[in-house]
Amino acid sequence: MSEQRGFIIPIGGAEEKLRDQAILRRFAKVAGGKHARIAVIPTASSLRETGRNYARIFEGDLGVREVQVLAYEARADAANDEWFSFLGKASAVFFTGGNQLRLATTIGGTRVTDLIRDRNRDDELHVAGTSAGASFLSEHMIAYGEDGGVPRADKVQLAPGMGLTQLAIIDQHFVQRDRLSRLLSAISYNPRLIGIGLDEDTAAFLDPNDCIEVVGSGAITVVDPSELEASTMDSAHRAAPVTVTNIRLHVLTEGATFDVRTRKAIPPPRR
Amino acid sequence: MSEQRGFIIPIGGAEEKLRDQAILRRFAKVAGGKHARIAVIPTASSLRETGRNYARIFEGDLGVREVQVLAYEARADAANDEWFSFLGKASAVFFTGGNQLRLATTIGGTRVTDLIRDRNRDDELHVAGTSAGASFLSEHMIAYGEDGGVPRADKVQLAPGMGLTQLAIIDQHFVQRDRLSRLLSAISYNPRLIGIGLDEDTAAFLDPNDCIEVVGSGAITVVDPSELEASTMDSAHRAAPVTVTNIRLHVLTEGATFDVRTRKAIPPPRR
Repeated sequence: MSEQRGFIIPIGGAEEKLRDQAILRRFAKVAGGKHARIAVIPTASSLRETGRNYARIFEGDLGVREVQVLAYEARADAANDEWFSFLGKASAVFFTGGNQLRLATTIGGTRVTDLIRDRNRDDELHVAGTSAGASFLSEHMIAYGEDGGVPRADKVQLAPGMGLTQLAIIDQHFVQRDRLSRLLSAISYNPRLIGIGLDEDTAAFLDPNDCIEVVGSGAITVVDPSELEASTMDSAHRAAPVTVTNIRLHVLTEGATFDVRTRKAIPPPRR
Repeated sequence: MSEQRGFIIPIGGAEEKLRDQAILRRFAKVAGGKHARIAVIPTASSLRETGRNYARIFEGDLGVREVQVLAYEARADAANDEWFSFLGKASAVFFTGGNQLRLATTIGGTRVTDLIRDRNRDDELHVAGTSAGASFLSEHMIAYGEDGGVPRADKVQLAPGMGLTQLAIIDQHFVQRDRLSRLLSAISYNPRLIGIGLDEDTAAFLDPNDCIEVVGSGAITVVDPSELEASTMDSAHRAAPVTVTNIRLHVLTEGATFDVRTRKAIPPPRR
């Protein structure tokens, strides 16, 4: 069991915060419930209250005893020893939404992300992120891109993310912003990774065995290129539509699971 | 020692093939000299003779006994069992130049790249690539970009590569095509990785301890962002110049070394 890592929990943004807090409640439960120690990192956001709002939900509504907001705003903030010490004993981290490039440029390559990656790998820390925070979790991150339309080589900008998993590229606000073609573009450069498109108020709870469970009111779209036969990504003009054949697609709703290693999707159990 | 991986050898393109074959000779030596078994993968190239030309150099000039050209041209070619079996007992692989996206779209995510990655990690296989082949070696690959000019968010297109190392982004034809600003752009998205810019006829022999030795007639430019203090990559308009401060730069010539883990550069020994 010690070979396992902690949970990785990307959320598609706009998760319900007032009425049915299903995703945040499940996250708090995974983190240890009342006894959880949650670090909220609001770096992606430009709004001062973002971190405090999540802290209020975790402490107030969900009864978590210890919550601290680590408001990294500049690279020099990585030197803050009090925050670093809290991260060293936290049971979970929550990254808010905003701009994923702000996360990468502010704490990428610092001891903060090193510690989060190491403790997650050693199964000491669960890590969730919503919207921009979700994109940042994996090795390959969609920095930005163009919504709608058809796949093209220049449709999406990839950048290195935090690197908790190398198996998937994560996209968010998925059906709300019509992002299938940008996720297909990202996946088609190299059909080694799967694509996970998260609708708003929907989360992928990626467990220590690389199995995803869907939680929330929307769906997760899984784009699996492992049987891809043909792709013109290398030959088409960068601004021209790209052909890709034999992509396998799953749309999964609450309770459904997807095993990233075996690439097998299982529908929700009958109630 | 069994924890170590094999050599990873990116070459900046246009390596000397006729007179002083220093880089190819050194590669053949690392691969086992006469007793080497070298697989040449010419997939990046659109020219039929590319693979055969390298085979002729390795067999003819350099005296390697077993060389085979594995001409993967479509994804279905990954099913070729004879080629796969040769890869399973090869001591080294050589990727030719051409178009790195052709490599990624043709053999990315197939059993071919899985086997190469696994055997390199287990120290059973050394892997070299020139030009496009060099770009493909690492986890984060520059797919294409714009030469010259200043760093910008939209200057360079990253894609997942073969993933032999996650420590560096590799660029090639470096001073010949004025690529510092595109490498700086690639590194500035997330200052977790270092940038390695390879001049033509110049190679980085990355040993099992993540230490680079420079071989060849040009130089290697190492871009180390680990002390980066400020970056406007997240806030600047995508087509506008980006500010990055406190990048550390090394220009290293033959015999110089760079330790990727400690980030320490050592000049060539005095002769």
